[in-house]
Amino acid sequence: MSLIVVGSVAYDGVETPHGKVDRMLGGAATYIALAAAYFTPVKIVAVVGDDFAREDTDFLASRGIDLEGLERVPGGKSFFWAGKYSDDMNDRTTLRTDLNVFAGFDPKLPPSYRDEPYLLLGNIQPALQRSVRGQMPRVRLTGGDTMNYWIKDFRAELLETLEQWDFLLINDSEARQLSGEYNLRRAAATIMALGPRILVIKRGEYGAILFHGDCHFIAPGYLLEEVFDPTGAGDCFAGGFIGYLAGRGVTPSHGHIDIAELRRAVIYGSVMGSFCCEQFGVDRFRTLSREEIEARYQEFQACTAF
Amino acid sequence: MSLIVVGSVAYDGVETPHGKVDRMLGGAATYIALAAAYFTPVKIVAVVGDDFAREDTDFLASRGIDLEGLERVPGGKSFFWAGKYSDDMNDRTTLRTDLNVFAGFDPKLPPSYRDEPYLLLGNIQPALQRSVRGQMPRVRLTGGDTMNYWIKDFRAELLETLEQWDFLLINDSEARQLSGEYNLRRAAATIMALGPRILVIKRGEYGAILFHGDCHFIAPGYLLEEVFDPTGAGDCFAGGFIGYLAGRGVTPSHGHIDIAELRRAVIYGSVMGSFCCEQFGVDRFRTLSREEIEARYQEFQACTAF
Repeated sequence: MSLIVVGSVAYDGVETPHGKVDRMLGGAATYIALAAAYFTPVKIVAVVGDDFAREDTDFLASRGIDLEGLERVPGGKSFFWAGKYSDDMNDRTTLRTDLNVFAGFDPKLPPSYRDEPYLLLGNIQPALQRSVRGQMPRVRLTGGDTMNYWIKDFRAELLETLEQWDFLLINDSEARQLSGEYNLRRAAATIMALGPRILVIKRGEYGAILFHGDCHFIAPGYLLEEVFDPTGAGDCFAGGFIGYLAGRGVTPSHGHIDIAELRRAVIYGSVMGSFCCEQFGVDRFRTLSREEIEARYQEFQACTAF
Repeated sequence: MSLIVVGSVAYDGVETPHGKVDRMLGGAATYIALAAAYFTPVKIVAVVGDDFAREDTDFLASRGIDLEGLERVPGGKSFFWAGKYSDDMNDRTTLRTDLNVFAGFDPKLPPSYRDEPYLLLGNIQPALQRSVRGQMPRVRLTGGDTMNYWIKDFRAELLETLEQWDFLLINDSEARQLSGEYNLRRAAATIMALGPRILVIKRGEYGAILFHGDCHFIAPGYLLEEVFDPTGAGDCFAGGFIGYLAGRGVTPSHGHIDIAELRRAVIYGSVMGSFCCEQFGVDRFRTLSREEIEARYQEFQACTAF
């Protein structure tokens, strides 16, 4: 039972107060897959150019990530994004966005992917997200991410897409924009009426809130001693969340889902997001062990119990 | 065993997106005392003018708050503050500050106050906070609040004052300003080296973090359906925190304090801060019952357990 992850696999240039890297492995699907792969087998759907380095596919493959769905466009260049963070790292400025082969991304799932039960749709055009969902007739748990651009300019497509999702993971400002409500409790109620019965509102360093039915669960952010590079933290949250659920075999049944497992999944999301910030790009995942993940999960329990 | 609360008792004019009140009971000591009085007997030290209304002293007295230390200056006017909140209520603009009798505030404790074990120093001039502490030779647990103005322009006095405190309650931007560290874990370590062995960093709607020794405890903010008026929420947090500890008889002993009780005190602080926002000014405390407080404490447990 694998998790299908769809989204960007890219190169990033990142500058933070701690340093600067001109070009390194990045992309939402990369971060999601790397985080999720600690919990469950992952199969990736993405597109790269022929500049995509062997060492990067090797790294992903070394984590057991299936790359059959990683399309390579001959003569094409991989998606490139560059950004610079503010001194407190709460804001970032995009310096460059070269969509390259990503501009023509039309995800086609290999037959070996289509019967899998778990699907995480990274932040891409809502119609493409919907097309992927349509290619997976036996999917049991579907969800994903979106962003301000799609909410504003592709609203109708996005709403049609969300109708088919079990869960949506977005940040607080996106939740407000999508719902038209400032208050997060009201925003959540409005969004859940659009389709997703499970909503996770991410709040950056402040953690996340899980909404399900009339219940909510507030998870704190991990208090890092040092944030090196927040790039990908939200995607790693998503990867930890869905990866944990897939690894445990959690699916909805007759409209019900195990809420205790959902809560644990949110904490694993926070755990994976926190590790992501500890080094540049995906570097933390080159050494991170499952034992470190469990230790941090327990630290979360110790820091929140009363 | 009573709690001594020192600070402003005032009138406020407040405008929020939900309405406008030209003049109502306010002041840090008022909010602290009202919140704390649900847990422990409170004695207030403050100054008002002879414009201070009988109905307001009656209201405080009805909560068992001892007003012997409430000095009334004949011919004087009470401290008046007016402010207006932004649409999202995360920012406020001060429209007017008339210190009036508060400008000459020189707190003198009645003899009946001096042997009490608990002291909460609201946000006043650090030298005055120190003078009050000096009038309480048998105090067992001392702490309080401060603000950006004292941190910047009265730093030496503030540092001398903090040396004698067991706990400090400040918000995140003040913690950063006081410590010169952006990262809250580092900021906390720097501040605790100044004297207070217990530090609570308040994060507004995101809750608070308790630091003690090498441990920390992250408490979420309560997710209100509607924020009517956030005025006084931080003071009510302080009142709930110290009120709970005083009511339970918690004091440090040979440098040790019951950490489980401190954690519960932080949650009661969050609970009282959340109730404060539900109506204008102190109005919520006119009807709030101890049963509602316990129910919300349990709601906090239900929303955070995993």
